[in-house]
Amino acid sequence: MSEYLPPLSDTRFVLEEVVCLEDLCQGLDLGEFDLEMATQILAEAGRLAADVLAPLNAAGDRDGARLGEAGVQETPGFAKAYRLFCAGGWSALSAQPEIGGQGLPQVLATAVNELWHSANMAFALCPLLSLGAIEALRHHASPALQARYLPKLVSGEWTGTMNLTEPDAGSDLAAVKTRAVPEGEHYRLSGQKIFITWGEHGMSDNILHLVLARLPEAPAGVKGLSLFLVPRFIPGDEGTPGPNEVRCLSLEHKLGIHGSPTCVMNLGGDRGALGYLIGEPHAGLACMFTMMNHARQAVGMQGLAIAERAYQAARGYARQRLQGTARDGSRFAIIRFPDVRRMLMQMKAAVEAMRALALIAAAEVDRAEHGDQASARAHQRRVDLYTPIVKGWMTELAQEVTSLAVQVHGGAGYIEETGVARHFRDARILPIYEGTNGIQALDLVGRKTLADGGETLAALFDEIEGTLGALVCEPRCGVLAEALGAALEAARAAWQRLLKGAGDDPALAGSVSFNFMQLMGYLCGGWAIARSALAAALMLGAGRGDPAFLEAKLITARFYAEHLLPRTQALLLSVQAGSGSIMALPEDAF
Amino acid sequence: MSEYLPPLSDTRFVLEEVVCLEDLCQGLDLGEFDLEMATQILAEAGRLAADVLAPLNAAGDRDGARLGEAGVQETPGFAKAYRLFCAGGWSALSAQPEIGGQGLPQVLATAVNELWHSANMAFALCPLLSLGAIEALRHHASPALQARYLPKLVSGEWTGTMNLTEPDAGSDLAAVKTRAVPEGEHYRLSGQKIFITWGEHGMSDNILHLVLARLPEAPAGVKGLSLFLVPRFIPGDEGTPGPNEVRCLSLEHKLGIHGSPTCVMNLGGDRGALGYLIGEPHAGLACMFTMMNHARQAVGMQGLAIAERAYQAARGYARQRLQGTARDGSRFAIIRFPDVRRMLMQMKAAVEAMRALALIAAAEVDRAEHGDQASARAHQRRVDLYTPIVKGWMTELAQEVTSLAVQVHGGAGYIEETGVARHFRDARILPIYEGTNGIQALDLVGRKTLADGGETLAALFDEIEGTLGALVCEPRCGVLAEALGAALEAARAAWQRLLKGAGDDPALAGSVSFNFMQLMGYLCGGWAIARSALAAALMLGAGRGDPAFLEAKLITARFYAEHLLPRTQALLLSVQAGSGSIMALPEDAF
Repeated sequence: MSEYLPPLSDTRFVLEEVVCLEDLCQGLDLGEFDLEMATQILAEAGRLAADVLAPLNAAGDRDGARLGEAGVQETPGFAKAYRLFCAGGWSALSAQPEIGGQGLPQVLATAVNELWHSANMAFALCPLLSLGAIEALRHHASPALQARYLPKLVSGEWTGTMNLTEPDAGSDLAAVKTRAVPEGEHYRLSGQKIFITWGEHGMSDNILHLVLARLPEAPAGVKGLSLFLVPRFIPGDEGTPGPNEVRCLSLEHKLGIHGSPTCVMNLGGDRGALGYLIGEPHAGLACMFTMMNHARQAVGMQGLAIAERAYQAARGYARQRLQGTARDGSRFAIIRFPDVRRMLMQMKAAVEAMRALALIAAAEVDRAEHGDQASARAHQRRVDLYTPIVKGWMTELAQEVTSLAVQVHGGAGYIEETGVARHFRDARILPIYEGTNGIQALDLVGRKTLADGGETLAALFDEIEGTLGALVCEPRCGVLAEALGAALEAARAAWQRLLKGAGDDPALAGSVSFNFMQLMGYLCGGWAIARSALAAALMLGAGRGDPAFLEAKLITARFYAEHLLPRTQALLLSVQAGSGSIMALPEDAF
Repeated sequence: MSEYLPPLSDTRFVLEEVVCLEDLCQGLDLGEFDLEMATQILAEAGRLAADVLAPLNAAGDRDGARLGEAGVQETPGFAKAYRLFCAGGWSALSAQPEIGGQGLPQVLATAVNELWHSANMAFALCPLLSLGAIEALRHHASPALQARYLPKLVSGEWTGTMNLTEPDAGSDLAAVKTRAVPEGEHYRLSGQKIFITWGEHGMSDNILHLVLARLPEAPAGVKGLSLFLVPRFIPGDEGTPGPNEVRCLSLEHKLGIHGSPTCVMNLGGDRGALGYLIGEPHAGLACMFTMMNHARQAVGMQGLAIAERAYQAARGYARQRLQGTARDGSRFAIIRFPDVRRMLMQMKAAVEAMRALALIAAAEVDRAEHGDQASARAHQRRVDLYTPIVKGWMTELAQEVTSLAVQVHGGAGYIEETGVARHFRDARILPIYEGTNGIQALDLVGRKTLADGGETLAALFDEIEGTLGALVCEPRCGVLAEALGAALEAARAAWQRLLKGAGDDPALAGSVSFNFMQLMGYLCGGWAIARSALAAALMLGAGRGDPAFLEAKLITARFYAEHLLPRTQALLLSVQAGSGSIMALPEDAF
């Protein structure tokens, strides 16, 4: 089993040179936070991730959560790790100080989250879901509910879940059947929810379920959904302390993330589960999106995290596996073989582009939260545009990277004890949960581009154009400039095809959305790594920084230009083909 | 769990209209075999596959092979299924009648093999390995060895294995350490072999291990390897009947194909395992390649088979999963969503292109075996060219298809009980075993193209050019003609890049080989489905055949042209980039 090494140099480089954290800090109201503090926090998190969480990764897979008489029992060792995690103050790094958080910027929280998820994605899902619950409560719950529930959620003493899916209501939440009936100040809920991540466990004193349900006489469809807070244990100051009627009926037997209990939850029994309305009646979908949008970028970050972990495993194996014989009979490591290097470079370039993009997108969240009103709105629109790209593209790329990591290991990669197959299995959930990537793609072409006539998209294109202007002036970035320019043209052409065709052809948007999202992903990833390369070239020119790191960055960016950006050309051809051959077959001809 | 439906219509179409089985039969010496007989054989095999083997697929995964006191015990039910399989005469369909085989063409055997591997890949690996052993014995073993061992191998009473890999010798067989010492007419072998598929089990009375080992004073490297036959039980007529010193030490705990025991084998103990030399001393590599080349095309066919099975699962789920709500509140199946159709079309087009290519390649094997000497040589060169493409490209595409099948299932796809994740896990071995796809790619650019200056490749390109000439005359194939033409140009340009650069840059071939192989795969798959489309268009014009099937074929081919062939453009750009950014990083910069 390979060790995990937090990629602190690259993270710091992106924070300092690409996201320009110092400027971000000055522009925003972030107190005394600065790059040095960020670096220290990352180093500290890296130790916990590498020393405590990463060694539990294999155990989580082998001894996954189990359901017994006393409820769900998580993997041995997880509870202790979770206590250390909370004691370190990691549970709510970006939450507001008023509610007990550290008030640190989202861009740093994202960088830190990458470390947790590389170390142990199944474990890190638990605090990740709490963050979504914090966001939903903070934005939508009454002051009384916030006062009662937020502090312990922020401290990590209690954890949160999202209870959305039901057997008949997955991507289509219109079909949610769980019912909530008013009873005095609160409600009684009954129904069944599935795929509830960390829905039950023993790591925290209480679990706060955020549940989508219908009030009596609610309108049909998604407009009749309301969001409720359903605590596992009703706190003592409620008058009716004790266990609530919400429990795990069974655990799913999954392809991966065995350390993360995926629960079928039952709400109700004798009286119904006691719950509190969050926000307005029938406004549950908006509240849920507050959670989901946060979670979607976070799932993209998980794609980066698991790709980084898999890359490290492949790199380690390629360095130590002797499987070539030189003419003198001596043996050498497989990292010398060009085809193995191709795979490692593919992984490295993908990981570095994803990291740069994830942090660029997270910095936009900070700008949207902290800037003045007009600029905040523009930044929020950019966040909204990035979210499906970060989720959809990065999680697809994570499939390729984890699969390449298996491949570098050869036969050993297929053996579970090696560990790399575990990352491959774990990663496969990412294109599915928090909205399948098909849903992300529809969100991108619908709400995020066609809805505003492409205005937000055009602003992004212009910004990429600006980077291109700088790239062409940099002699070492010629290949990159050419490839990024071609990718930008491809994206513009794809957008024009979509814009012009969508009115006449109702199937067009749905037919081309996935390929359009992938095209946008490769472009944005290319832009992100191009900005990294540009910074590296300038630093080398100015004699700043570690030359070996900066040279590697330039080479990695060039690899991205030569081997990943060309995919935009194939994707453009797919988009241009439209819906014809996708929709032509009668259903029974499949 | 979805049922398996043998795709008999498509197989028959390819055999009749693309491979032109009737012509093949007339040109070759195949007795009374004809298309009708082929159709009946396929239907019969389809029943066994669907009724007996497919229902054991889940059991093989759940209750995989186990090692106990009495040796390896296969999945309950497998032994009975294997007896039915042998009783039906399926164990050696293409083996010569002189040795007890059915003497049927390889193209039919390949079509039948697809059915076994779709139904139950883990099970079907056992008879597949016997076929490789039959080939090796038939071509290289002494008449006495053949007489003693072939008949029971052909009848399936005994099974065969390939014992090549050792802990230090995987892709690099130069490092094989197993030793063979002469003792009278036979040899005594000692050593350890790993990753031995079906190395031990209770389904047959005996297991014949084909073992690579070194004779005393053998030259170093691969030129010092010899091939031996090591039976698990020494037959009674040998003078020393009873168990041989060869046994399974442990079983691997794998990502997939749990029903197939992957053994660590120990040879030797007190005296060494008794073995017989196959072929000449130190000529083991050539003997092994006889097995491997057969096996490599067969692994490509496994890619097709598991992709077909996964596609069927996705199609079935997409038809029955209600997860859309219409305006009137009624629900509809997800197959209506354009993005789901995109995924299903991607799978369908990939599967049909793979099937056509697999059968085209298998027919070349028949032509190489049965034609006159001059044409046989040309056909053998074509077989040699196809082999790495069929293995390398089809097994990569199988990863995409099985992953898409998981995606179509959404959250249910990640749950093991659904079954589709099993296909995804099973498929992951295919790019690894029988020579990793990196090895295939090196074989393609080295032995199969650069070695003859591209002569064999040029002949293929000319033949594709011929198909293009016919395509452009067919009004319904315009899109296909254009895309295939562009792909052919891309392949020619990639080949020129490789040919011109390989002399000056020793890392070039290894750097571009994988992308070149993928480019060739998409081209050959495109050519194969284009020939299918051309036949369909001609049949529709002539009023022959089932119009619905033929229309679907044209649409599927068009989808391939619009969504899979464009990838050749991106691959060309990768090939053109050469080795620069792949080789530039110092090893410690990864």
